[in-house]
Amino acid sequence: MDKYGDIISLSKRRGIFYPSYDIYGGEAGFYDYGPIGTLLKNNVENRWREFYVLGEKFMEISTPVITPYNILKASGHTDKFLDIILVCKNCGKAFKAEEVAEKNRKKLECPECGGRMEEGRINLMFETGVGPRKKEKAFLRPETAQGIFVNFPVLYQFSRKKLPFGVVQVGKGFRNEVSPRQGIIRLREFSMAEAEIFFDPEYKNHENFDEMKDDIMIVVPAGGEDMEDTVEHVVGKGVIKNKALAYHMALTKRFLLSVGIDEKKLRFRQHLQEEMAHYASDCWDAEVLTSLGWVECVGIADRTAYDIKAHMDATGVDMTAFKLYDEPVKEKKKVVVPKMGRIGPEFGINAKEVKEMLEKTEPDDGPFHIEIDGKDVEIGSEFYDVVEKEVVVTGKNFIPHVVEPSYGIDRIVYCILEHNYAEQEKEGERYVTLKLPSCIAPVKAGVFPLVNKDNLPSIAREIEMELRQNGMVAIYDGGGSVGRRYARMDEIGTPFCITVDYTTLEDDTVTIRWRDTTEQVRVKREELAGWVTERIR
Amino acid sequence: MDKYGDIISLSKRRGIFYPSYDIYGGEAGFYDYGPIGTLLKNNVENRWREFYVLGEKFMEISTPVITPYNILKASGHTDKFLDIILVCKNCGKAFKAEEVAEKNRKKLECPECGGRMEEGRINLMFETGVGPRKKEKAFLRPETAQGIFVNFPVLYQFSRKKLPFGVVQVGKGFRNEVSPRQGIIRLREFSMAEAEIFFDPEYKNHENFDEMKDDIMIVVPAGGEDMEDTVEHVVGKGVIKNKALAYHMALTKRFLLSVGIDEKKLRFRQHLQEEMAHYASDCWDAEVLTSLGWVECVGIADRTAYDIKAHMDATGVDMTAFKLYDEPVKEKKKVVVPKMGRIGPEFGINAKEVKEMLEKTEPDDGPFHIEIDGKDVEIGSEFYDVVEKEVVVTGKNFIPHVVEPSYGIDRIVYCILEHNYAEQEKEGERYVTLKLPSCIAPVKAGVFPLVNKDNLPSIAREIEMELRQNGMVAIYDGGGSVGRRYARMDEIGTPFCITVDYTTLEDDTVTIRWRDTTEQVRVKREELAGWVTERIR
Repeated sequence: MDKYGDIISLSKRRGIFYPSYDIYGGEAGFYDYGPIGTLLKNNVENRWREFYVLGEKFMEISTPVITPYNILKASGHTDKFLDIILVCKNCGKAFKAEEVAEKNRKKLECPECGGRMEEGRINLMFETGVGPRKKEKAFLRPETAQGIFVNFPVLYQFSRKKLPFGVVQVGKGFRNEVSPRQGIIRLREFSMAEAEIFFDPEYKNHENFDEMKDDIMIVVPAGGEDMEDTVEHVVGKGVIKNKALAYHMALTKRFLLSVGIDEKKLRFRQHLQEEMAHYASDCWDAEVLTSLGWVECVGIADRTAYDIKAHMDATGVDMTAFKLYDEPVKEKKKVVVPKMGRIGPEFGINAKEVKEMLEKTEPDDGPFHIEIDGKDVEIGSEFYDVVEKEVVVTGKNFIPHVVEPSYGIDRIVYCILEHNYAEQEKEGERYVTLKLPSCIAPVKAGVFPLVNKDNLPSIAREIEMELRQNGMVAIYDGGGSVGRRYARMDEIGTPFCITVDYTTLEDDTVTIRWRDTTEQVRVKREELAGWVTERIR
Repeated sequence: MDKYGDIISLSKRRGIFYPSYDIYGGEAGFYDYGPIGTLLKNNVENRWREFYVLGEKFMEISTPVITPYNILKASGHTDKFLDIILVCKNCGKAFKAEEVAEKNRKKLECPECGGRMEEGRINLMFETGVGPRKKEKAFLRPETAQGIFVNFPVLYQFSRKKLPFGVVQVGKGFRNEVSPRQGIIRLREFSMAEAEIFFDPEYKNHENFDEMKDDIMIVVPAGGEDMEDTVEHVVGKGVIKNKALAYHMALTKRFLLSVGIDEKKLRFRQHLQEEMAHYASDCWDAEVLTSLGWVECVGIADRTAYDIKAHMDATGVDMTAFKLYDEPVKEKKKVVVPKMGRIGPEFGINAKEVKEMLEKTEPDDGPFHIEIDGKDVEIGSEFYDVVEKEVVVTGKNFIPHVVEPSYGIDRIVYCILEHNYAEQEKEGERYVTLKLPSCIAPVKAGVFPLVNKDNLPSIAREIEMELRQNGMVAIYDGGGSVGRRYARMDEIGTPFCITVDYTTLEDDTVTIRWRDTTEQVRVKREELAGWVTERIR
């Protein structure tokens, strides 16, 4: 069986993931995480929080899945979040353009029934309606990012108006894919973890860049040659265009390695101009090599000022940041100076109002209008001068730029499984070990009584509960031979197996066997929780 | 200001929660959790997992939000998940029937415009469509429970076919409420944590019932008198109908107290027959007293065999559990015995087929039919006898019953805030302290340099990072006076504030001040992470 098949089969057998709504015949593009899979996925997400929330000190927020039309209209998703499809006018089936073999595509001939196909564009968002009767159009969010962008004004306050700062969201995203496929690789409902980092566009750097600068990465620039070099060199050569982007690519690599992705099967590929999302000016995908080919797991995009500007334009709300200059600067500025000698006689009792209106305007905004006695009156240039003045400016307003690492959690879970799946033959049988890093292993310890008598089972159950009280998932197993129990634990990547035996009754020690070497040590029961905790960090 | 107003104001000011899509004018029924609120909510959910996943050893799964029509048709939600509304034919506004004042309701007069209203029923589910062109009807799940029920066959395998076992899900639920209101109390998109516990209906007990039996609870039985008594007595008197339900009510109480709900403001109220959900045979709400009145935070329902039976009927899939009797029992059973003396002559070469068909049937299934040479032939009672036989039966199949504690996380978060909000006057100003239990406090420690010079800030920043590396959210604050920094931390419920001062430079100790007593101790820097960790458990 191929590797993909192995993972699908293991996942189904042990409750990692499997198709949703199976008893109803399934629903394409939807998968459930079973008990082992949910522990694994939660651990991966929490590990991600260790990097981004604890390590980078980014703020995590949580915004709704249901997103009103206006927001996704402004962000460009209602107009540009499209797939080109070919629809058969005979059988009604729809295909993604790139999935139809060239000979059929050129002739617009349906690959299933031979009927005539028409090209169309389809929006990938799931639509719904809010409200009891007259439903207001809304969508399920295609990314968590927009929930962060529309919050920028308050988040900027919470960051005490200092840039750069980062905000993350971990949650569901939805895309009504034309052809969902490959297990949890292309889902219609998926889990994402996204970070939006708001920058002063004149300072796209990271204060800890130097800590990452010697990390090695493999990069595949758009239209260039693959290279393997240090982060510092890749930025220095201009292949990655700024240090902020480079830092976040290096951080992505560190995260992926920490959850068990094989360094040799990880590369960063730059998007070609035509494959870039509508909001991005530059994008690098962290791609992971699997039996299905290179799988795009993380996109690290420079979204520039695109999204914030879009929401500013749509709402009229000021979403700029303010930057204090190091020193106040003198700037020459054109100002409007009312000519009172002409305004007074002309406007009489309304003269003051005209003067104040003119003083508030910028010279380029003219011609100027004012309402007098309910009538619109134009104030001609004979009533003011435009004068150049020197003013002292302490800072400036600007629209922040955004760098976004966007993680597809389901794909990462799949890649972790492939890269840590090891198979050997033991006594004529296939023996599977998942060599997961301990920090993300679903179950941290199996606890076994050597035999099911002489009080050993009840001691083992107590130990199971002691570990659980210390925050670790431990599983008691008294079924079958100890060898079988090891096998069941190895198959789901449990790093430690603890056996309670007759020596336990004498000296209160237990045997701990480590998955990857099968070596065994004896540890005092009272030190057990601490011993395991230390090793799963 | 009233307490509700205080919480809303604090929540907005400090980023706990606030209305979603604010810059677009907001969207009724949707709230964001800000940086502090998301930490708090995540901590409450993880504390819940400590009780249910670690403590009760329930399996957590994760299933989609988007749920196909068939499933919710079978579960009764498309037909019965309704609100009665009154819609004005003049202005078009819709009201929940119970919200319209009686005088308007009786006259069917719109409370807003005086127009004529009509009564209607409205389904509360959000609808969407799956697929690129011909969209298949689907809904956003109104509860996470159905994702668990349709998985029962595999979950039963994972539990090694032993009952009782529990399965939980933590995630979003959706209800297109007619009148969302009261902040995060009635949302259209909300967070739930649900446990479905599958029982043998003949054994609705819990192995650890005795650990809970002396817990005191206040219960308000339907149509009965309030009582405050031990769990054991309440079950003994038949007020709660079985020990499984009673255990889970007691566990709910322990959980709510552990996250800071005030014991004196918690009661369990039994549903009246007419307010019960369509799937429940009995239901108790854990209600929490707030300034808005009693708020229903957890529903603990006996769903009996309702849901599993519904999905069995809809799919034809066998979803029964099997129970081995303690000892095999002899049962009298009627069986069909073919009369070969009559079948042979009549059916010739088809005789064997007729015999086998008859042997496979139950006596009550007759009259019997068989297809011979493409024709349907009825086998009359002259061809068989019905004989009573004694058979040995080792066990039986049955549909498991379900007890479900269903938690509304948002409401609990709100109640926690109210019950832990303390206000005093300090130097003429309002001083707010959130006395949250340390285990759910969003920020575990504030870290301050006494002054912003002499290397104190950089030591404080190092300590902030050391705590973060140990899994705790710590926040450096060097702004304003130390008093102001304490105030900012007290307001979001941070249990510990650590100050780096000149003594730190001499002996590497820091001051820790505890929020609730403001008492201070000095602790060695190297012992700091351990010291705090121990106290936030």
